[in-house]
Amino acid sequence: MFYTDGRLQFPVRVETPDPQFARALQQAIGGVEGEIRVAMQYFFQACGARGNPKFRDLLMNTAAEELGHIEMLATAVALNLEGAPVSVKEEVAADPVGGAVLGGLNLKNILSAGLSAMPVDSDGVPFNMSHIYASGNIAADMTCNIAAEATGRTLAVRLYNMTQDPGMKEMLSFLIARDTMHQNQWVAALEELGGPTQVFPIPNSFPQEMEKTEFSYAFLGFQADGSAPVAGRWSQGPSPDGKGEFTANPMSPLGEKPVLGPAKPMSGAQTEQITPA
Amino acid sequence: MFYTDGRLQFPVRVETPDPQFARALQQAIGGVEGEIRVAMQYFFQACGARGNPKFRDLLMNTAAEELGHIEMLATAVALNLEGAPVSVKEEVAADPVGGAVLGGLNLKNILSAGLSAMPVDSDGVPFNMSHIYASGNIAADMTCNIAAEATGRTLAVRLYNMTQDPGMKEMLSFLIARDTMHQNQWVAALEELGGPTQVFPIPNSFPQEMEKTEFSYAFLGFQADGSAPVAGRWSQGPSPDGKGEFTANPMSPLGEKPVLGPAKPMSGAQTEQITPA
Amino acid sequence: MFYTDGRLQFPVRVETPDPQFARALQQAIGGVEGEIRVAMQYFFQACGARGNPKFRDLLMNTAAEELGHIEMLATAVALNLEGAPVSVKEEVAADPVGGAVLGGLNLKNILSAGLSAMPVDSDGVPFNMSHIYASGNIAADMTCNIAAEATGRTLAVRLYNMTQDPGMKEMLSFLIARDTMHQNQWVAALEELGGPTQVFPIPNSFPQEMEKTEFSYAFLGFQADGSAPVAGRWSQGPSPDGKGEFTANPMSPLGEKPVLGPAKPMSGAQTEQITPA
Amino acid sequence: MFYTDGRLQFPVRVETPDPQFARALQQAIGGVEGEIRVAMQYFFQACGARGNPKFRDLLMNTAAEELGHIEMLATAVALNLEGAPVSVKEEVAADPVGGAVLGGLNLKNILSAGLSAMPVDSDGVPFNMSHIYASGNIAADMTCNIAAEATGRTLAVRLYNMTQDPGMKEMLSFLIARDTMHQNQWVAALEELGGPTQVFPIPNSFPQEMEKTEFSYAFLGFQADGSAPVAGRWSQGPSPDGKGEFTANPMSPLGEKPVLGPAKPMSGAQTEQITPA
Amino acid sequence: MFYTDGRLQFPVRVETPDPQFARALQQAIGGVEGEIRVAMQYFFQACGARGNPKFRDLLMNTAAEELGHIEMLATAVALNLEGAPVSVKEEVAADPVGGAVLGGLNLKNILSAGLSAMPVDSDGVPFNMSHIYASGNIAADMTCNIAAEATGRTLAVRLYNMTQDPGMKEMLSFLIARDTMHQNQWVAALEELGGPTQVFPIPNSFPQEMEKTEFSYAFLGFQADGSAPVAGRWSQGPSPDGKGEFTANPMSPLGEKPVLGPAKPMSGAQTEQITPA
Amino acid sequence: MFYTDGRLQFPVRVETPDPQFARALQQAIGGVEGEIRVAMQYFFQACGARGNPKFRDLLMNTAAEELGHIEMLATAVALNLEGAPVSVKEEVAADPVGGAVLGGLNLKNILSAGLSAMPVDSDGVPFNMSHIYASGNIAADMTCNIAAEATGRTLAVRLYNMTQDPGMKEMLSFLIARDTMHQNQWVAALEELGGPTQVFPIPNSFPQEMEKTEFSYAFLGFQADGSAPVAGRWSQGPSPDGKGEFTANPMSPLGEKPVLGPAKPMSGAQTEQITPA
Repeated sequence: MFYTDGRLQFPVRVETPDPQFARALQQAIGGVEGEIRVAMQYFFQACGARGNPKFRDLLMNTAAEELGHIEMLATAVALNLEGAPVSVKEEVAADPVGGAVLGGLNLKNILSAGLSAMPVDSDGVPFNMSHIYASGNIAADMTCNIAAEATGRTLAVRLYNMTQDPGMKEMLSFLIARDTMHQNQWVAALEELGGPTQVFPIPNSFPQEMEKTEFSYAFLGFQADGSAPVAGRWSQGPSPDGKGEFTANPMSPLGEKPVLGPAKPMSGAQTEQITPA
Repeated sequence: MFYTDGRLQFPVRVETPDPQFARALQQAIGGVEGEIRVAMQYFFQACGARGNPKFRDLLMNTAAEELGHIEMLATAVALNLEGAPVSVKEEVAADPVGGAVLGGLNLKNILSAGLSAMPVDSDGVPFNMSHIYASGNIAADMTCNIAAEATGRTLAVRLYNMTQDPGMKEMLSFLIARDTMHQNQWVAALEELGGPTQVFPIPNSFPQEMEKTEFSYAFLGFQADGSAPVAGRWSQGPSPDGKGEFTANPMSPLGEKPVLGPAKPMSGAQTEQITPA
Repeated sequence: MFYTDGRLQFPVRVETPDPQFARALQQAIGGVEGEIRVAMQYFFQACGARGNPKFRDLLMNTAAEELGHIEMLATAVALNLEGAPVSVKEEVAADPVGGAVLGGLNLKNILSAGLSAMPVDSDGVPFNMSHIYASGNIAADMTCNIAAEATGRTLAVRLYNMTQDPGMKEMLSFLIARDTMHQNQWVAALEELGGPTQVFPIPNSFPQEMEKTEFSYAFLGFQADGSAPVAGRWSQGPSPDGKGEFTANPMSPLGEKPVLGPAKPMSGAQTEQITPA
Repeated sequence: MFYTDGRLQFPVRVETPDPQFARALQQAIGGVEGEIRVAMQYFFQACGARGNPKFRDLLMNTAAEELGHIEMLATAVALNLEGAPVSVKEEVAADPVGGAVLGGLNLKNILSAGLSAMPVDSDGVPFNMSHIYASGNIAADMTCNIAAEATGRTLAVRLYNMTQDPGMKEMLSFLIARDTMHQNQWVAALEELGGPTQVFPIPNSFPQEMEKTEFSYAFLGFQADGSAPVAGRWSQGPSPDGKGEFTANPMSPLGEKPVLGPAKPMSGAQTEQITPA
Repeated sequence: MFYTDGRLQFPVRVETPDPQFARALQQAIGGVEGEIRVAMQYFFQACGARGNPKFRDLLMNTAAEELGHIEMLATAVALNLEGAPVSVKEEVAADPVGGAVLGGLNLKNILSAGLSAMPVDSDGVPFNMSHIYASGNIAADMTCNIAAEATGRTLAVRLYNMTQDPGMKEMLSFLIARDTMHQNQWVAALEELGGPTQVFPIPNSFPQEMEKTEFSYAFLGFQADGSAPVAGRWSQGPSPDGKGEFTANPMSPLGEKPVLGPAKPMSGAQTEQITPA
Repeated sequence: MFYTDGRLQFPVRVETPDPQFARALQQAIGGVEGEIRVAMQYFFQACGARGNPKFRDLLMNTAAEELGHIEMLATAVALNLEGAPVSVKEEVAADPVGGAVLGGLNLKNILSAGLSAMPVDSDGVPFNMSHIYASGNIAADMTCNIAAEATGRTLAVRLYNMTQDPGMKEMLSFLIARDTMHQNQWVAALEELGGPTQVFPIPNSFPQEMEKTEFSYAFLGFQADGSAPVAGRWSQGPSPDGKGEFTANPMSPLGEKPVLGPAKPMSGAQTEQITPA
């Protein structure tokens, strides 16, 4: 169950409303690396967490935190939009040279939301919940969370560089710090699960002798001239999961050209597909 | 530039066509953890790779491999669909008890694709390219790739358990092995970039003194009763990035209730919002 | 800011796991009339609420309630999915007659989520956040909320009729009651705003003399034979907003066929479009 | 069956083509509160209307009207786009100071549609037909229609304020008037169905004694400090449906922390989830 | 402007309601090759038609026809759904062996639409208006329409084969005939525009001397072994546009490996990308 | 199986980075008429090609070519984005007059991709794989391919006109030439299948005597005044498929108003719908 107090987790202050920066901030709300994504991802992972209940608690706790981040950012968007024009006169006043102010905004923030935040990204595309990765495998979930926080902090840093408003920089420095914590938190959760050699390959419940083991640690090359693929940590030495030794070599097709046979009668194909010459 | 020879990377053989398993296999083609996703993700990451060119080569090489996996799976879907009915007579023959055969399929595989594979998931939802994570930050990209292969191998294992066709099990045991390799490969790439203490927090180019460092390694609690959040590797000890020490404590709001002020005249609000009583 | 205690708002009990009912319940999570929609809709409306702050508080309070409903339903889905087969042997045991069990499920609940809930609807389509209506006009928002709860309760009733599990009926009877309350709550909020004659037409801040008033209360007919449109409360008597009197009459086009003129050179049109004969 | 005469319902005249306003107008075509939405919503509600046939006629009649509104707006978009540059020379002529003209447009209106309208919103996002609410419950449908027209008129007012072209203001003043009528029309339809006390709670065919009636008229509080939720018309007095009396009180969880039990073997989980320590 | 008479263009009769066939019919409503697509595609093409006005008239006339087809199919879906169970008792009665009936349906047709049609495809995926191809080039539009009717008639034939209900076969034989007409109609429209040698390459307004003409009629090979690509009508002889002669030969890359240079400081990249070793 | 050499099919050179043109180029990558679409469309058509194997080879060969085009365009986008500002200082330097530079971009190319290409269109909307038309009918597929290349070349021409960078014009003149070839190639493939009189109506395997032949070559009119529809090549003369003679006449409804009967009890309708007065 969830509770609220309507107060902001961290102060949100805008010195000079900048409607174009409001557009950029939308990415941190409704972008695929934004706060709706992490809030809902941790929420659904928690709801499906089987096994040690501490992971459910960990996930739901952080989901609650991220809900508060959406709230902060939505407030920041609304405050920045207070500088956006809503009538012709205002637009002309704001931009005597040309029509650049309105043109540079998500028009939906004005037309659909009346100067408020929306669950869309910085180009006005609504967030799609297919980005909620909750696999039922706790270790796979942790890798998804590290990825989410890695892209999330990258976004926050880009936003920080894009503004010079002191209030916005302050808010973003808080969010960047939380992303630092969360990257570390999910890596730590993988350690709690035993670290790389216990955890990988994910899922660790599949007996590896049932996979084609000659391909399990081979870095295969798909270079047109048949040469070996580019060398690196991935082409030799022990594998990070501690269960193999990397090799590298060019690949050749092991199968033939596929033959599907003729189309079935009544399947809507052309006659020539049904009874080939 | 890309080349093809029309041959399959690994043999695809179906002993007993099972149109319902064709539906399940669609997840490995057009699901968010499927092969279109990894092929296109590595492709776009390669195209945007700045810095050491070996990562571009590594990514594009693996993109080529994954394109071949889509080809294999599309062939497997088409072969399994050869058992699907396309006319009333066939349906009755296939399922004398009731209408379960057609009902259990993605009807689009029949109605739209004529017994062929489609770029959709196991419930018929088309793949959406917003799932191509290519961030311009090479380390963030690697975390996204680990996540993709972790969920990808989990899916392949589930498919393996869901079929008893020897040909399909053979094909899947190859794909599972490749996912083992790719999980290790992307972890190895993070090692090539210096390993956790060099790489994290991502992006490592942001000066950490500019973040609110008192929140950078603090596990904050959002428990309704104000209690400490659940303990674990994430609540004490050194952080995996080697730059901090975990602490844990309940969080209180640092901000106030947000005040947006009245709505602007001509902004389409109700009169009462513009001139509050 | 949000808090959680990890406990369920109302007990969720499943006597006989029914994976097909899990599929149906998904509509109440990720359907357009489901709980993610109302939780996020009230949340974003609250974040953008300008004017009297009581509406912000009202909305955020109910957003918190709805988050708890998602949690309940996600638990219900996971418990129902415990009856779903994950391997061939189980499938055969569960359904000796044919392959109907797996066929009747959202396969993604198994393949992507490992027997857990997902933010998708009953046919596996992910929720899209474009359904979060938050207009910046508080009265328009209330009408959207009445609509959401009207369709929401209709859905809950349909689910209630579709199951015979006592635990599920119990949970749904709670959710139906909450929908009863919420329908009344949002109608009451419109009353708080002054009731129909104060509130309509929305937005009430637009001077009605600037609209084409001869069409403001006219029920226009578009019947091919030029007859009057179907009579009802909408074709005569005072209008509910108290500002007009309904009339009814057939409509004729007031404009001409549109003429766009030729295509511009270099606009990618055919030559004949640029210089018509 | 539908007929057309190719003439516009109301004259569409653009004095000064403004391609940026074309972008804004797209919201009224392909936005979630736009004309495609209402045309198709009334169309599908009509097709599924069971019971008194007058509602089918009412809905289909208005669907025909809205189709004509799309036609008007698409013409308006095309006429406004006649001012958009399609070649470098034109762009420089149109905007000697910088590249603002093209930058402020939906590029797809130029690149994909050759200076014509598209079924997309003001940020170029295609309309998604999941927004067609047609529930099979006639009263629920009416609430959805009131909501659609409330947001629709709000949008039209915002567009009216955003332009100073006399032709566009004329066209919009017609559309605003029609939205006034349609808001009243759908409220009137609810009256035809008996008004609030007959209609609510929707669906009225569910026996209310089967819901958890102690929660049917209770305004529950989810405030973190356990305080009562914000008071208003919704917290005391008779409920608008005439069937209850509002109360208000804080909520406590009635359920426990959910326990899902261990993951199933072969479900793709980590080993630790299957056999917890 | 549009008009309606509420009557069906062609009789819709269902002898034996078959809810699973209702699901299949949904593809003809909301599938990418369905009737919403053609109705809206012709509508938007008409609205953007520049040049000879006869094409606008042709397109809008056919748009009106297709709207009537949606109406027919929506009726057919509703009539077929009358056999679907809505309560547990009905489900058991309809399917004493197992839960196959409900499992084989789009649950949204029951849960969201109350036994009515929806603008979704046969797997419950909503139609997305990005499929409305209206390019501003009249000849390109005609090719899109031929494609739409080719896939549309293929779908209708598949539906015809999938049912044995005489009423449904009758309705589909009408729709198939209309698709025959429409395929011919759009090919005829290309003839009206001058036929292949006048029309192609589309757009014919681009001076061909500005394209790299050595590649304009060359069938290039991308075979991994450098062999010539498969021969056919496309590899020799005059080109259908009458402006060239086909040749065939293997392709080699004309460009080099791309070099993007280092990442910009402050662009959110890793430090190593900004200052490569 | 696929191979790569990492080299570009044709040189990609940008003399003056233009981030706004990068935005326009995105349409050629992730637009519905872009290169991802054709690459994946030919790929999936190849995988499902039944009948004469030469079509599979033809399709897969061209799929490989198109993959290389995505690579070229992604490189062009990244090079053009090198002129985009990422920090406040840069923005001010780039655009001393106002904030137009950032405003005119897809912000996601900066915020999500760090100055790299993405699989999105020119307004930032991700490509959706539902646009991959692969019907299982080889002739229908060819019509879809002609349509794809007709809209694709139209787009490329528009991009050519929109830039004055010599490198970009060079690259586009190559792509335009390839589109010329591909339009001809797919028309030639229809000739290989027998040309219009053999191929149409698609699918040619359906016995035409089973369709309502009186409607197969009739151009029906849906004019509100009952007049004949606009005359043209489509209203008289032999049909292009060689199997009929066009006629033209107004249409009247052949069916009645649909009657669905009352709603089922327990179907979630209003009581009045279940037992109409």
